[in-house]
Amino acid sequence: MHFITEQRLDDGVLEREFTLGEIPGTLWTPASAAPAPLILMAHNNGLPRTADRLVARARYCAAQGYAVATIDAPGCGERPRSAADEQVRADLRRAMQAGEPVDEIFESLVGPLVENAVPEWRTTLDALLALPEIGGPVGYSGWTAVGIRLAVAEPRIAAAGFFAGGYVPRAQREEARHVTVPLLFLLQWDDEGNPRQRALDLFDAFGTGEKTLHANPGGHTGTPWLEAEDGIRFFGRHLT
Amino acid sequence: MHFITEQRLDDGVLEREFTLGEIPGTLWTPASAAPAPLILMAHNNGLPRTADRLVARARYCAAQGYAVATIDAPGCGERPRSAADEQVRADLRRAMQAGEPVDEIFESLVGPLVENAVPEWRTTLDALLALPEIGGPVGYSGWTAVGIRLAVAEPRIAAAGFFAGGYVPRAQREEARHVTVPLLFLLQWDDEGNPRQRALDLFDAFGTGEKTLHANPGGHTGTPWLEAEDGIRFFGRHLT
Repeated sequence: MHFITEQRLDDGVLEREFTLGEIPGTLWTPASAAPAPLILMAHNNGLPRTADRLVARARYCAAQGYAVATIDAPGCGERPRSAADEQVRADLRRAMQAGEPVDEIFESLVGPLVENAVPEWRTTLDALLALPEIGGPVGYSGWTAVGIRLAVAEPRIAAAGFFAGGYVPRAQREEARHVTVPLLFLLQWDDEGNPRQRALDLFDAFGTGEKTLHANPGGHTGTPWLEAEDGIRFFGRHLT
Repeated sequence: MHFITEQRLDDGVLEREFTLGEIPGTLWTPASAAPAPLILMAHNNGLPRTADRLVARARYCAAQGYAVATIDAPGCGERPRSAADEQVRADLRRAMQAGEPVDEIFESLVGPLVENAVPEWRTTLDALLALPEIGGPVGYSGWTAVGIRLAVAEPRIAAAGFFAGGYVPRAQREEARHVTVPLLFLLQWDDEGNPRQRALDLFDAFGTGEKTLHANPGGHTGTPWLEAEDGIRFFGRHLT
């Protein structure tokens, strides 16, 4: 893990960009000298890790005492897209504009993104836990499909907050019943591109006995800030 | 308002039973000398105000700095039931055991309970706000049907937490769109006697732009304690 930039923020949080092989990422660590619990903050594929609202959330979590890390997974953010990927995205835009069904296109787009992202998240997790300033336990926050896969495959994940907005491939919907860690599931009630019923069905399917759904009115990007605060309390119950 | 019992709890909360005309109630006030914001804690009709889990929640809220008041509304708790009321409840039990539709019976039971409860809650509110130890603003917590009626009719209610379990008469489902105060709506995902979809439809119908749904797995009485803590934070945002 090579740190390539470093910035000390006003509240003492250290923000560093890193590379790990081909993986570009950002790590925020709190001012405290003690090893911090870690939150893997995985954004949906459409957003770069440098997007303002993700950075704001990560800095807030770090200021609350968590190490927070994010990466651009393959085909996401600043990573190159394959010609096949570009083609699927073009197909998707065309189908959406035409009002045609998009599930199969989403499957062929998001399915491989998830498959490719998870091994890189696990590699990143190995490297992060080797840093002296990071102790664990480990939480996960964000992209639902990757989070399901990771929560099932990776025993080091102790709690997870999933954002319901975003296509969840059939494989991960099927896998949801094997998620057994405490879960906070965040739904934007009027999310334009994500059917509400599908999100409610997914909440129903999660296998864990300790799961809470939080729903707020508004569209995909309208999550109120109070949910960032609730997220911190959720991780506070399970990671500290 | 006549106080008939008085008990100082370990954390300094003062618990007093009162009568206000025919209305029996309990008031919890925090140790602090400053006038406290008030939470009206209205339980569903099946429970007396002395039920353990209601008292535990009220004491907790008072220990957090709120005055909390509850009453047994007409036909509820220790109040006498009319012969007509007893008949409707017998009809309800019979229909439930026979697996017959119960909506119309619930309408004839809960509709009048709500109509009779709301004026008494407003009378109680007048008396409470005349006490020097209570300042306001005023929040409401509990029984959804009474809460909808009260939030619409009573401009002194500044924020409300509703518990989704319990029959909501058609009149109040219709009125939900006129609720404009910030709202926390608490749903038990597997509530045996209350259809989930009806609760989700009601959440959708509330007119306020500031509403949050919290759902947890488990039956009617299984609400996890963390929701009491979340409730306090909700009222902290809107009543202090």
